[in-house]
Amino acid sequence: MSYDAGKYDVAVIGAGHAGIEAALASARLGCRTVIFTINMDAVGNCPCNPSIGGTAKGHLVREVDALGGEMGKTADECTLQSRMLNLGKGPAVHSLRAQIDRNKYARVMKHKLEQCENLVMRQAEVIDIERDGENWLLTTRLGAVYTCRAVVLATGTFLGGRIFVGEVSYAGGPDGMFPATELAGSLKELGISLRRFKTGTPARVLRSSIDFTDLEVQKGDEPVTPFSFDAEMPPKNSAVCYVSWTNDRTKQVILDNIHRSPLYTGMIEGVGPRYCPSIEDKIMRFSEKPRHQLFIEPCGAETEEMYLQGMSSSLPEEVQIAFYRTIKGLEHVEIMRNAYAIEYDCCDPLQLNATLEFRDYPGLYGAGQFNGSSGYEEAAAQGFVAGANAALKVLNRDPLILDRAGSYIGTLIDDLITKGVTDPYRMMTSRSEYRLVLRQDNADERLTPIGRELGLIDDRRWAKFEKKQAQKEAEMKRAEKTVFSPTDALNEVLVSCETSPVTTGVRLSELLRRPQVTYADLTPIDTERPDYPREIFESVETALKYEGYIKRQLQDIAEMRRLEKKLLPKEINYAEISGLRLEAQEKLNRVRPENVGQAGRISGVSPADISVLLIWLSAHNEGK
Amino acid sequence: MSYDAGKYDVAVIGAGHAGIEAALASARLGCRTVIFTINMDAVGNCPCNPSIGGTAKGHLVREVDALGGEMGKTADECTLQSRMLNLGKGPAVHSLRAQIDRNKYARVMKHKLEQCENLVMRQAEVIDIERDGENWLLTTRLGAVYTCRAVVLATGTFLGGRIFVGEVSYAGGPDGMFPATELAGSLKELGISLRRFKTGTPARVLRSSIDFTDLEVQKGDEPVTPFSFDAEMPPKNSAVCYVSWTNDRTKQVILDNIHRSPLYTGMIEGVGPRYCPSIEDKIMRFSEKPRHQLFIEPCGAETEEMYLQGMSSSLPEEVQIAFYRTIKGLEHVEIMRNAYAIEYDCCDPLQLNATLEFRDYPGLYGAGQFNGSSGYEEAAAQGFVAGANAALKVLNRDPLILDRAGSYIGTLIDDLITKGVTDPYRMMTSRSEYRLVLRQDNADERLTPIGRELGLIDDRRWAKFEKKQAQKEAEMKRAEKTVFSPTDALNEVLVSCETSPVTTGVRLSELLRRPQVTYADLTPIDTERPDYPREIFESVETALKYEGYIKRQLQDIAEMRRLEKKLLPKEINYAEISGLRLEAQEKLNRVRPENVGQAGRISGVSPADISVLLIWLSAHNEGK
Repeated sequence: MSYDAGKYDVAVIGAGHAGIEAALASARLGCRTVIFTINMDAVGNCPCNPSIGGTAKGHLVREVDALGGEMGKTADECTLQSRMLNLGKGPAVHSLRAQIDRNKYARVMKHKLEQCENLVMRQAEVIDIERDGENWLLTTRLGAVYTCRAVVLATGTFLGGRIFVGEVSYAGGPDGMFPATELAGSLKELGISLRRFKTGTPARVLRSSIDFTDLEVQKGDEPVTPFSFDAEMPPKNSAVCYVSWTNDRTKQVILDNIHRSPLYTGMIEGVGPRYCPSIEDKIMRFSEKPRHQLFIEPCGAETEEMYLQGMSSSLPEEVQIAFYRTIKGLEHVEIMRNAYAIEYDCCDPLQLNATLEFRDYPGLYGAGQFNGSSGYEEAAAQGFVAGANAALKVLNRDPLILDRAGSYIGTLIDDLITKGVTDPYRMMTSRSEYRLVLRQDNADERLTPIGRELGLIDDRRWAKFEKKQAQKEAEMKRAEKTVFSPTDALNEVLVSCETSPVTTGVRLSELLRRPQVTYADLTPIDTERPDYPREIFESVETALKYEGYIKRQLQDIAEMRRLEKKLLPKEINYAEISGLRLEAQEKLNRVRPENVGQAGRISGVSPADISVLLIWLSAHNEGK
Repeated sequence: MSYDAGKYDVAVIGAGHAGIEAALASARLGCRTVIFTINMDAVGNCPCNPSIGGTAKGHLVREVDALGGEMGKTADECTLQSRMLNLGKGPAVHSLRAQIDRNKYARVMKHKLEQCENLVMRQAEVIDIERDGENWLLTTRLGAVYTCRAVVLATGTFLGGRIFVGEVSYAGGPDGMFPATELAGSLKELGISLRRFKTGTPARVLRSSIDFTDLEVQKGDEPVTPFSFDAEMPPKNSAVCYVSWTNDRTKQVILDNIHRSPLYTGMIEGVGPRYCPSIEDKIMRFSEKPRHQLFIEPCGAETEEMYLQGMSSSLPEEVQIAFYRTIKGLEHVEIMRNAYAIEYDCCDPLQLNATLEFRDYPGLYGAGQFNGSSGYEEAAAQGFVAGANAALKVLNRDPLILDRAGSYIGTLIDDLITKGVTDPYRMMTSRSEYRLVLRQDNADERLTPIGRELGLIDDRRWAKFEKKQAQKEAEMKRAEKTVFSPTDALNEVLVSCETSPVTTGVRLSELLRRPQVTYADLTPIDTERPDYPREIFESVETALKYEGYIKRQLQDIAEMRRLEKKLLPKEINYAEISGLRLEAQEKLNRVRPENVGQAGRISGVSPADISVLLIWLSAHNEGK
């Protein structure tokens, strides 16, 4: 009953945010690629919030874009409302977040896949995976057997998916799709260790059933900053969001019914995302908090469905209706799709190396929620890396390894494969020790040369990038060179900025180093300023203002990279290295770090252990 | 675990083409309406061909539109390519057919439902239906219990849906959706008789894998005729279709593998649509035919998926690939979604009366595939009638009963409830004995007054309709009044039309009665012609050309309506009417016709039986 469905270089299982970037990266690198989806109408679906980006997530989107990925461009095409978050804080945490048209996002992404050379799409459930010498064999429910050199597992919440709403539970994928029921068993048979995680989503409600009268309106930025460094025109805002709050009655309804939550009855075994809790979790864990904020967001330009950001739940439907209706504006809300929790199988990412390949299964890669992360952006980032590496391996090229010092993507992957996860991993700016260097505004500077090297940045875009870098450099030089006389006009500006006037000539760069002074303030004085795009000045200003901190971080990075260069042999048995504490031996054997730098980040490995390792390593290398 | 989800006037189960029209009609008539869908992303989905209309089906769409339904308007908004079929034949069989953008059609329809007053949408699977006095109680999988005055069952292929591809079979709805697994059991418990039907769909393939070089191109009409009588602007063609043919090799591949078809192995119990057979059916049933035509049609403006019209199949995937690739243009075709058959539960429509209400279950209505029909258009037509009647019943208003003489919709319903079905019923022009009267061009004349009476045609549209009727009437009068002299110019036209010249004055109407002469031909002569829209002249020309036939059909209609007025009492027991043949007694007791006209159309009831019935009826009525 099974038949030969042909040979492919790379197969991608799943066409969500991870699978899409994986398939595009692989196909664009020249590999014959096949992508499987359980439902062709759910390619690029956003089963949770209709938005892309957010704190630290926005960084990931820009990084994927800088490398030549697709998420940022598509988000720009589908933006309904966009904001740069945390503008009141330092530039390290500025993050872009856009409401997007969910249906449009999915169809634009699917269309890009359809149009991509070297790529074919298959609506098929992969039910079996097995090794065959150098190849992987994938079998679908209809008996097609695909022979592939490399495979990217990007199964999201479909793998062993199970839906929970109060006391009701059934096998299901996100958004009413079929789950993948058999693949998990096949992976377990291979020897891959899986675990259960869960996530959830709030209700979608009917716009006309909401009373917006007293709700705070949240508008987008004007002008919008696009995600993509390659955007021709910035997207336009065409919608607003609304803010409301839970109250004592909301809390009471939830407390009165908490015994009916599948999380509390123990029906759900899976571990949920710590930083994206359900409303009942928030109420229980932060019982002192009088209220919780929620955002009412449009799901698209051509639908009246609204998303209740912050209010995910797996309580019974009737309880959902009751607590949503306690909230201002939602007193008569009509639920179109109820909130639910979904439990799914994912792998322990300690089994992966920095290319996202399974250490013990050459040619097998993991990406996205399958690796224990949460979030569309985390998924896309890993998808890009896994897909590119799958292709690079097939092409016998050097792998793509992004380190913590160069990107949030590198930080994300290093966290996953070094520290492992106990709950769905979410990117946060606090996860990076180099966040002043890893800003969203300089993602292109950090990563586009890597994308170019890969072959995913074409000549046109590369020229655009080089022009921008040259402008930044020129402006930096100009800022150091330009001296303003201590005129009344200048001092008036300085005083109005609440900083001290000057009595001698002063460099533009010195002024910009003052925390109170911006390019905008200096516009009347700085008459020779060239006509560059806004982002050039933003970059230069940030570079100058945070020069000291950035320098210090660059020193840290140099030190880290020194340790990263000290590679640890693959066959090493840490139990045999005397001097290592027992815990370090165990952890090192489990994580199998690729270098001393990574070893140092394993929890349970102390600086003393690292010294022992360094000594062992130099002795070992000498002995060679 | 169950809870009270509120009271509704009308509940509609299913949001496909039947459910949509039912819900809109009900809500627009002022009834508080709820519509249930298993998947909110599949509302208005076209799981089979991406087109609306076709022979006789185009009539249904225009009739639904004339009554105030939505299908025609939405199809117009989503048209990619449109053709008036059968223009080489008589006006009775002219039928409109449009390729539509599948994704857009679904989202436009969903948006209309969302914006409709009195209507709420619920993503929920209804698993139980039971009677509670005057009400129906619907229970969803999540325990919500809706109390409704009337219910429309519009379950399409979801009810007990099961997918077949070669030897593989699994529970599933169309297009990868979950099926409705429990409702059928609940209906059976009520005592409703269900049966298994099946239908199928061809593969969707990747445009760039097709070689269009030698394929015949099929363009749309210029200008396009819109479906809706209320269209402001006609749609524009933006795409073309392609024609190809099967060949001996196609046939051979299918014959070599026919033993693997679930139809032939007996896996499928359901009966398929006679007039929309799978390619293996065509090959087996018409084995003398050397080739079969297929159309390669775009699925949307924003997708590279193409639909292989005419090539549905439930053969194994590998066989599908093999036979598709025998076809010119498809030598290297890449299948994105495989062809499949779907088996589903539907009712025996003999249980329904002309309002589509179950005779024995007041307040319970059926529509669409659930009633044993096939086709989006047949579904929409029934949905409109069932939804309107559900609402009219709740509102204590007279029911909407459309008869065979007034519409294809009436013909469709009368066929279903009088003759029953042994396979999915498809509308055809040959099913109407009054097809010269029931033309697509005069659907508004026939039905818009009924829509107005219902309350579904607003003042603006009614004024537009009245204006058009007045123009038709004026033009008809002008045609009878206008006399052309036997000038050389006129005779030149007549000779060039290959009809005889005139020697005396001749009326415009007389000229138009000649089969060879059209308004267009007479343009140079007919200088006083008013500036009316094109369709006015088309209507008048048809009315004149076919005057004799139309008159005869109108006489037949009068006779039929006389018999339709002779109502048969509900409680009648035909077994007690002596003189009726046994077969007639049985059939009459089963169908329980509402009047003598309907009784006469039951197969197995002879003209002699009708005479007996008429005699009995007059005696019975006198006896009263």
